Amino acid sequence: MKVAVVGASGYVGLELLRLVLRHPRLELAAATSEQRAGRPVGEAFPALRGLVDLAFEEAVPEALARRAEVAFTALPHAASAPIVAGLRKAGVTVIDLSADFRFRSLEVYEEWYGAHKAPDFFGQAVYGLPELYGAELRGAELAASAGCYPTGALLPLVPFLREGLIEPSPIFIDAKSGVSGAGRKLEVGLLFSELDGNSLAYKVGQHRHTPEIEQEAAVAAGEPVSVTFVPYLIPTIRGIVSSVLVQTRGGLTTEAALEVLARAYADAPFVRVLPAGEMPRLQAVRGSNFCDLTAVADERRGTLVLLSAIDNLVKGAAGQAVQCLNLMRGWEESEGLLEAPLAV
Amino acid sequence: MKVAVVGASGYVGLELLRLVLRHPRLELAAATSEQRAGRPVGEAFPALRGLVDLAFEEAVPEALARRAEVAFTALPHAASAPIVAGLRKAGVTVIDLSADFRFRSLEVYEEWYGAHKAPDFFGQAVYGLPELYGAELRGAELAASAGCYPTGALLPLVPFLREGLIEPSPIFIDAKSGVSGAGRKLEVGLLFSELDGNSLAYKVGQHRHTPEIEQEAAVAAGEPVSVTFVPYLIPTIRGIVSSVLVQTRGGLTTEAALEVLARAYADAPFVRVLPAGEMPRLQAVRGSNFCDLTAVADERRGTLVLLSAIDNLVKGAAGQAVQCLNLMRGWEESEGLLEAPLAV
Amino acid sequence: MKVAVVGASGYVGLELLRLVLRHPRLELAAATSEQRAGRPVGEAFPALRGLVDLAFEEAVPEALARRAEVAFTALPHAASAPIVAGLRKAGVTVIDLSADFRFRSLEVYEEWYGAHKAPDFFGQAVYGLPELYGAELRGAELAASAGCYPTGALLPLVPFLREGLIEPSPIFIDAKSGVSGAGRKLEVGLLFSELDGNSLAYKVGQHRHTPEIEQEAAVAAGEPVSVTFVPYLIPTIRGIVSSVLVQTRGGLTTEAALEVLARAYADAPFVRVLPAGEMPRLQAVRGSNFCDLTAVADERRGTLVLLSAIDNLVKGAAGQAVQCLNLMRGWEESEGLLEAPLAV
Amino acid sequence: MKVAVVGASGYVGLELLRLVLRHPRLELAAATSEQRAGRPVGEAFPALRGLVDLAFEEAVPEALARRAEVAFTALPHAASAPIVAGLRKAGVTVIDLSADFRFRSLEVYEEWYGAHKAPDFFGQAVYGLPELYGAELRGAELAASAGCYPTGALLPLVPFLREGLIEPSPIFIDAKSGVSGAGRKLEVGLLFSELDGNSLAYKVGQHRHTPEIEQEAAVAAGEPVSVTFVPYLIPTIRGIVSSVLVQTRGGLTTEAALEVLARAYADAPFVRVLPAGEMPRLQAVRGSNFCDLTAVADERRGTLVLLSAIDNLVKGAAGQAVQCLNLMRGWEESEGLLEAPLAV
Repeated sequence: MKVAVVGASGYVGLELLRLVLRHPRLELAAATSEQRAGRPVGEAFPALRGLVDLAFEEAVPEALARRAEVAFTALPHAASAPIVAGLRKAGVTVIDLSADFRFRSLEVYEEWYGAHKAPDFFGQAVYGLPELYGAELRGAELAASAGCYPTGALLPLVPFLREGLIEPSPIFIDAKSGVSGAGRKLEVGLLFSELDGNSLAYKVGQHRHTPEIEQEAAVAAGEPVSVTFVPYLIPTIRGIVSSVLVQTRGGLTTEAALEVLARAYADAPFVRVLPAGEMPRLQAVRGSNFCDLTAVADERRGTLVLLSAIDNLVKGAAGQAVQCLNLMRGWEESEGLLEAPLAV
Repeated sequence: MKVAVVGASGYVGLELLRLVLRHPRLELAAATSEQRAGRPVGEAFPALRGLVDLAFEEAVPEALARRAEVAFTALPHAASAPIVAGLRKAGVTVIDLSADFRFRSLEVYEEWYGAHKAPDFFGQAVYGLPELYGAELRGAELAASAGCYPTGALLPLVPFLREGLIEPSPIFIDAKSGVSGAGRKLEVGLLFSELDGNSLAYKVGQHRHTPEIEQEAAVAAGEPVSVTFVPYLIPTIRGIVSSVLVQTRGGLTTEAALEVLARAYADAPFVRVLPAGEMPRLQAVRGSNFCDLTAVADERRGTLVLLSAIDNLVKGAAGQAVQCLNLMRGWEESEGLLEAPLAV
Repeated sequence: MKVAVVGASGYVGLELLRLVLRHPRLELAAATSEQRAGRPVGEAFPALRGLVDLAFEEAVPEALARRAEVAFTALPHAASAPIVAGLRKAGVTVIDLSADFRFRSLEVYEEWYGAHKAPDFFGQAVYGLPELYGAELRGAELAASAGCYPTGALLPLVPFLREGLIEPSPIFIDAKSGVSGAGRKLEVGLLFSELDGNSLAYKVGQHRHTPEIEQEAAVAAGEPVSVTFVPYLIPTIRGIVSSVLVQTRGGLTTEAALEVLARAYADAPFVRVLPAGEMPRLQAVRGSNFCDLTAVADERRGTLVLLSAIDNLVKGAAGQAVQCLNLMRGWEESEGLLEAPLAV
Repeated sequence: MKVAVVGASGYVGLELLRLVLRHPRLELAAATSEQRAGRPVGEAFPALRGLVDLAFEEAVPEALARRAEVAFTALPHAASAPIVAGLRKAGVTVIDLSADFRFRSLEVYEEWYGAHKAPDFFGQAVYGLPELYGAELRGAELAASAGCYPTGALLPLVPFLREGLIEPSPIFIDAKSGVSGAGRKLEVGLLFSELDGNSLAYKVGQHRHTPEIEQEAAVAAGEPVSVTFVPYLIPTIRGIVSSVLVQTRGGLTTEAALEVLARAYADAPFVRVLPAGEMPRLQAVRGSNFCDLTAVADERRGTLVLLSAIDNLVKGAAGQAVQCLNLMRGWEESEGLLEAPLAV
């Protein structure tokens, strides 16, 4: 099946190229980049030299539709919506990696992201977190691949909200992200010399992934959920480790909490619930689509710590999008995605 | 004034050597190391070549007392107590950097650390967090320099507990530490190839700094406080950034919270309360004794996020110990300690 | 085809597991580790959880031979030779990744590595650098996969020696290696806190890869070659970038030098000769079997700088071994190995 | 003595601020930055909060001359020359850290750097490598602080050239630099995600420090010297480790080579000649003005490897400039500069 990667020169876009190249059912038909249009992919990105024969092109939906059945769109929010709309109108199946189609409420979207650029298509996408929306993804033509922080937070959190085992408010999430999450942006704060040996929180209480987490948490809880979200940068390129810090309703032991997770993800090929005492770690998921999970309960204090690790560029973005496509097309969920992490 | 550094070949010990060398009132008279006894300091540690004329020796309290008025003891808990006792008996002023004299309750100490090895001296030390115990440190002869995580957690937290502005339970602390906090230990998990690009939580809910934080938080609150503490390793050598996640009692704005901090630390030379929106970061404190602080309130959710950054080897250990000594001897609190961080 | 990985718990061994798992013709039948015998692979190495069903076992050649047609041996030198001998006697095809079978002269081997532990088999292996010994590898039953530094040095160097374009002495090689090259050894010098932000040369003029480079360089030159080899550690896990610094015989331009390389590797699927001015870099080869090459000539000074980049664990070890196997069995040389690097 | 730091917001400029703050004879009177003029220093650079009361200002020589006796100029080449000229005309002692006054030949300067912007002052500066030009620096009013790579290369090399012990051509220099050497520039190639885990050579044979090295090497040799210079970036912020690869004239043992170095630097407070077998390393010099040196001879091959380590921002820039000032003013050469490195 021929696919186009739209916005292929950012870190997520490059990761999509990597994963499309290794997927047995996919063939890369087009890769777009405004800035690099006309340049051969393998010349602009030396890692891909010899692996991709295409040149970057501009993102023209009709032109892409002539060559590709499926498109992954990895553009910034607002830039993505009109391209997605154009691709859908031209009959292309789309997995969008921006925030433009992740929300249920247009009001919430516009409060956090500004005016929506393709309101006709708002609300038509399935939320692309396959472990939660696997059934809805089957046969869908538009998926809004879940954000990186929401993926790391919701996978451990949702089972407890669904079962009513924890208080819906307050929920604290403290997440530590590798720098690639900020994208390939020319900002002084993203220079090597400003980040090596450094770590700092940013956008505390103001990060745009907060309403996305709250939306899906509320769906799971059946009532509003209040999240205080604290993201950090840590000095590595890939990965997110998250702590979700909650209060239990009634007693909950670590063993019971681990069972809740094990039950929820018994059939999920990419969720690994770790044995008691083993902590999720970035190296164990690097380059892979896994989400490693554990839980530590403190019965005396009535608190529960949920922990997760993902590769933000794979399970937090490109891998998740491919996983969505696998389900949308009715293929094996893990097709082309099951590989050993590049641990060291 | 002549000083001995006991346990001088670990990372904290080496940092003590560095700070003693730059302190205008201190002269290094002895440095001990069991493993390296007999070896010149500058040969065992190439960074110190040409700066220290001494050879490492064994830690014999009476012998040290003949040459030093003051000793910094940077030994593991349990190993420290008998040496401290010996030094005190010989009349030496001691700043102990282990956990052996930080607790008010022997029961709590022994629950977390095992049998105390010098119970006669238990309870005789001033808790060495100068911003909270400045008055008590003046003239003291034994100080128990506060732990690294407790320093990073208590400095932002205590003012709010003292003023009764936040709920005493649950308090969540999510702290990210550089690897030097684990010491120079031969463990596979501390190898470069196991930690570069990696991050993971450890000892969740079981870390020995939990009761130390709870003890001092309870003193501040005037009631028991319940802390859920989640420490992480991040891939850098130095520094701790901490989130303290609490619920407010009544409304509290970010501005009001920053004023609480500013008021509490108006006279503290090493606490820098940052302007609203600026986040504490490791680079801004590296190699220095500063603790940078800020607060972000979420009025709607009734939550408050307190954030801090310290260099774990300086404000979290060696620098704090020197700051304690400055106060114990009635010198300027910042003497020999006020230097520009090695930001990049 | 069923394969055994012997010595599977070091960094090279784990990389072999990763590559065997992704190779369409290979099935992992056994993985050995003295230290971890009896432990499930996915429990000992969390990255592999869910991907490998086997437990580690001890390395008993006869037992392995019952389950595997092919073995990759990733043991330290001297430990490897008897196991290789046992496996060969039992009819197993072996690709050995130690130094035990790389030499033509037993005298040279024993000068640098000590007594050989399986002299009967000495001299029976094909030197496993497929770009130089492709023809010899076809049908071979024992290959001695080339060392990491020799791979990075010989691939750029050999074409110039073969064509007599450079002086055979002195040849300077300055190579910078990621820390995984030192293995998973418990040494203080390999701790994260000793290597982050650090770099240093080691074993200058004494590194055991020197005679291996000189051997193959001499074969290419048809005369003795004298190499001064300076290896460095740099603060990253994977990869080797090498400078080979030589004097030309007669004039040589950069363009001419690049043509020499292009001609030599026209049919080599993993050697990428970069366009003039583009430098080999670690990110462009990370996790892949590529060797990127370039050359910069200084006509005025009569010098030539050859530069290469490889992933030491892939093209410098596990990937090269699989490439050898592909050739030994007459499969496509790049089978199971052609993947996009994990650039960021 | 009141000093101005001109160009104080780059990495070298910030390091100058750090060193001026700790120097007992210096008082910071002005700090300039075009981009940040008007902003308080401690607000623009959080590390300096509370340590500097000044605001950045524009670089107006006459205005600076009214407040400062001495100026350190840390501007890019070409931008520096007119400011230096203005400061000198106004009677200010200047230590310039750009390349503008390092050359003896205007022709060579202009070949590599373009038209000189203050030719009247060309040739008036003492080359600021205090170990070589200590006598000339005493009483001087203009010094051209030596470049970072030239410092790391010339200190090990010059003694051997002076004594005629090595061939003057070819000399190969392979130097590995931390990223701060590239400055605080907004280039994609300097982003954290492009450099962590990465290493690559750049400007091979074309780096502007080549003629500076050749100039001073030729002075030492008394004849022209031909240098092939290969600089690399390695993934750390600070420091340069260099290999200088040469051929000996006649036999030279490691011991003899180390004696040459020891003799040359017997009175140099910042040069540490290491014992045989110990290698210069970045951690041992980080944050300090030391240059660690060693030599390894290969008698059989007639080659000599010289190795050095410096902190590029200290001995390679700001510390060297302060060392020059100390000598220019007749103070103790090491005043304000002798501190223990921040090894970990």
